[in-house]
Amino acid sequence: MNQEFLEFVSIQLMKGSKTSLYVQLYDSLCELIISGKLSYGYLLPPVRKLAVFLAVNPGTVVNAYKLLEQNGYIFSRAGSGSYVAEIPAKGDTEYQPAAEIELEPLPPVTVHPGKNCLDFATVMPPPDLLPIDDFKNLLIEVLDRDQGKAFSYQDSQGFEPLRQAISTYLKEQGIKAQANNVQIISGAQQGIDIVAKAVLNYGDYVFTENPTYPGAIAAFRSRGAKIVEINMESDGINIQELEVKIRSFRPKLIYVMANIQNPTGYSYSLGKRNRLIGLARRYNALILEDDYISELDVSDAPLAPLKALDRDQRVIYLKSFSKIFMPGLRLAFLLMPPSMVTKVLASKHNSDISTSGLTQRAFDLYLRKGIWQRHIAAIRRIYLERYQTTLAAIEEYLPPAVTCHRPRGGLTCWLALPEGVSAQQVVQAAQQQGVLLTPGTAFFPRHAPDRFIRLSFAVVCSEEILQGVKILGDIISQYCLLNTEK
Amino acid sequence: MNQEFLEFVSIQLMKGSKTSLYVQLYDSLCELIISGKLSYGYLLPPVRKLAVFLAVNPGTVVNAYKLLEQNGYIFSRAGSGSYVAEIPAKGDTEYQPAAEIELEPLPPVTVHPGKNCLDFATVMPPPDLLPIDDFKNLLIEVLDRDQGKAFSYQDSQGFEPLRQAISTYLKEQGIKAQANNVQIISGAQQGIDIVAKAVLNYGDYVFTENPTYPGAIAAFRSRGAKIVEINMESDGINIQELEVKIRSFRPKLIYVMANIQNPTGYSYSLGKRNRLIGLARRYNALILEDDYISELDVSDAPLAPLKALDRDQRVIYLKSFSKIFMPGLRLAFLLMPPSMVTKVLASKHNSDISTSGLTQRAFDLYLRKGIWQRHIAAIRRIYLERYQTTLAAIEEYLPPAVTCHRPRGGLTCWLALPEGVSAQQVVQAAQQQGVLLTPGTAFFPRHAPDRFIRLSFAVVCSEEILQGVKILGDIISQYCLLNTEK
Repeated sequence: MNQEFLEFVSIQLMKGSKTSLYVQLYDSLCELIISGKLSYGYLLPPVRKLAVFLAVNPGTVVNAYKLLEQNGYIFSRAGSGSYVAEIPAKGDTEYQPAAEIELEPLPPVTVHPGKNCLDFATVMPPPDLLPIDDFKNLLIEVLDRDQGKAFSYQDSQGFEPLRQAISTYLKEQGIKAQANNVQIISGAQQGIDIVAKAVLNYGDYVFTENPTYPGAIAAFRSRGAKIVEINMESDGINIQELEVKIRSFRPKLIYVMANIQNPTGYSYSLGKRNRLIGLARRYNALILEDDYISELDVSDAPLAPLKALDRDQRVIYLKSFSKIFMPGLRLAFLLMPPSMVTKVLASKHNSDISTSGLTQRAFDLYLRKGIWQRHIAAIRRIYLERYQTTLAAIEEYLPPAVTCHRPRGGLTCWLALPEGVSAQQVVQAAQQQGVLLTPGTAFFPRHAPDRFIRLSFAVVCSEEILQGVKILGDIISQYCLLNTEK
Repeated sequence: MNQEFLEFVSIQLMKGSKTSLYVQLYDSLCELIISGKLSYGYLLPPVRKLAVFLAVNPGTVVNAYKLLEQNGYIFSRAGSGSYVAEIPAKGDTEYQPAAEIELEPLPPVTVHPGKNCLDFATVMPPPDLLPIDDFKNLLIEVLDRDQGKAFSYQDSQGFEPLRQAISTYLKEQGIKAQANNVQIISGAQQGIDIVAKAVLNYGDYVFTENPTYPGAIAAFRSRGAKIVEINMESDGINIQELEVKIRSFRPKLIYVMANIQNPTGYSYSLGKRNRLIGLARRYNALILEDDYISELDVSDAPLAPLKALDRDQRVIYLKSFSKIFMPGLRLAFLLMPPSMVTKVLASKHNSDISTSGLTQRAFDLYLRKGIWQRHIAAIRRIYLERYQTTLAAIEEYLPPAVTCHRPRGGLTCWLALPEGVSAQQVVQAAQQQGVLLTPGTAFFPRHAPDRFIRLSFAVVCSEEILQGVKILGDIISQYCLLNTEK
């Protein structure tokens, strides 16, 4: 027996079986890898040698290796061969070929929750907090000033005065920015989509936090990219896991929310920010930072975005103005490394030519006149109160076995239920009592644990918060009890 | 010598060469196909047999076949083997692997042509023809009526009353439509992009007219699809060519403009409409009909869209309201076969969640109050005059060797220059005399002939048309003369 192939003696291929030889070989190699017999970094034998050993033709081995690579079990280095990849927890490696993945709709946006519901699911501000009159006056001002130009095609990169106003605004937040590197887009979702188009080709790897925003997963999958998740911890992404996986998968892009992450509310420590950027530099990955909601950081020392630490132009910064302002307006921007500007512009152009010129012109005035800043200050006051009420209610009404990390702000809390209590069951039971919540499962790309709930205080007043969290607490307590009795 | 492999005796592969064996084999097979030695429909030998004959391993043949298929030279049928595909004119088959294609920006939109230019390049109406005051009043009406709701997230499929109003409008045009099958989108370019996302996977074939709208090419390429062009004739797509190619390539999608095509201005005959739909049915392809500008059909008997003939739900109808209305508003819709509704909705959601609710609500009133219909009628009167002036000026000032098919309307004419006269040179010379034109080369996905010019009368008055076409005529005459002297 050739010592070199000791690991492969268990492989038995059946010619004439219905399952083709290469799929049989693929399955056998998968087993060896998953069981740990071939461990991370193992150099697989050259195609020809393994083919001779198994008495199959080399094409069979080639195809099996290809499928392994496609599904994330191995990776190859030009000129040096194929290696076993780092394999996440069992089951997590079931990558489907992206072309066969159906596009998946995001969870529906709750536009009109029932009248008598306590709505802890919606994460946009209620219509009565939106600055309607201010914006109406600005629209009229723009139309009177610009006439037909407000309705003509807009430059695909965006209305230049607005890009100037944004770069001024960013400088106030500690981010160096030039109008040339700003791309106006129609909301944050489009930002993710056009960055995916500009950066990712079919089969490329992209890293996301786990859990993460499902709209990002959908955009990356639609692009045919392979998604590898890195677990979130309360001080940011798991850096050891990132380090091992980045070495194996060499992702083109890492998608993160460094401040008040969606859905966990976690924020990255300064140490983890620097490690993330350092690893991205070392393995030449781009970072897409989705600044989801940092205006609502109500802590004593609000954090600057990750982009503020980006010394070697590796972070694409994505910021939506619509999230806490006017979701239906569809307005956001990207601040890009200069090297990305042309690619992203082409991608925007191919997607929808340009964002509404009228909206851009009105929002430009909104920023320049300082009304945005005043609106944010007003909204912060309202949400600070709801945030404090929510945390106090959680403390008071939820069983101590429920854990909730205190976020720096934002619109949501992330609840971890005790072992053995099903989040989906709790959410359903709550809904029957008129309390709407979002089960955490929606936020995990794969193998979602059934123990998290996202609780949003975006559209509920203090009184409703107390009432709703109390109901939730009672439900969870009952399930805990049931659990103990079992 | 084995008679079976007679065609392959010329193949000589050099082991140890810098070029890998499979690429050498690919090149040799390409030559045989292009030279016609292996002709359309030829069944290639099984991998193993050819490998034995050439004394290479089967993996080499597998890889060469794969590359041939990827590049459109052969196609395979499950269980029956690989066949030589129909090969278009030499050179047209140089498909690049889509992943390596750079995203390409569209030709820049001319927003502010120089003051003293005669602008025959821009194809959107000038700002002073846009119905600003009407629309401003509607915006105010909507904001007063809907308050914050106008700025909340909009249903991803679109504002329901607007979808109702559109289906009513379509019924007036002879198209059966239900609001359920209407998807609101942010302009026609987005329609092409989201249909591409919903229908095409990496490596799928899509057919386009040749020449065609470059924005569509860019969207399909960005999706990783392979584009096969079908030549346009003055009464529509070349049906013989379509028939041969559809059999070989089995496209998922055929992108057409049946009425007043961009850039040629050609419209499909009734016979060709029916043949196109019949072939799509037979080979199970979807058709994306881009109704570019049929409101400006100024002929005595305006044509209904192709969609009106779609009895078996195979045509996706794309209509922009912004083209001759308000380009900067970014508003269009898709009327879909019911089976496509969910996929397209997911694709829209993943692209940008929804189109601006404010714009949709204002445009809804615009349609319901009949202002759109009045606007179209007014615009038609203006463009009928410019259309007639342009055709008369072409007749009078351009040398008879320039041919121009009389379009049924629209905003442009498509000029074919005499043999030997370079369109690019003429366009450059015209520009130096202050006349802006678009060379036809931008509209051909590959191997653009240098003899077409698109002349737009969208932003020039009658006087300017006469002046500009006269200058163009003089320039072309000079080039014709130079050409004769050579």
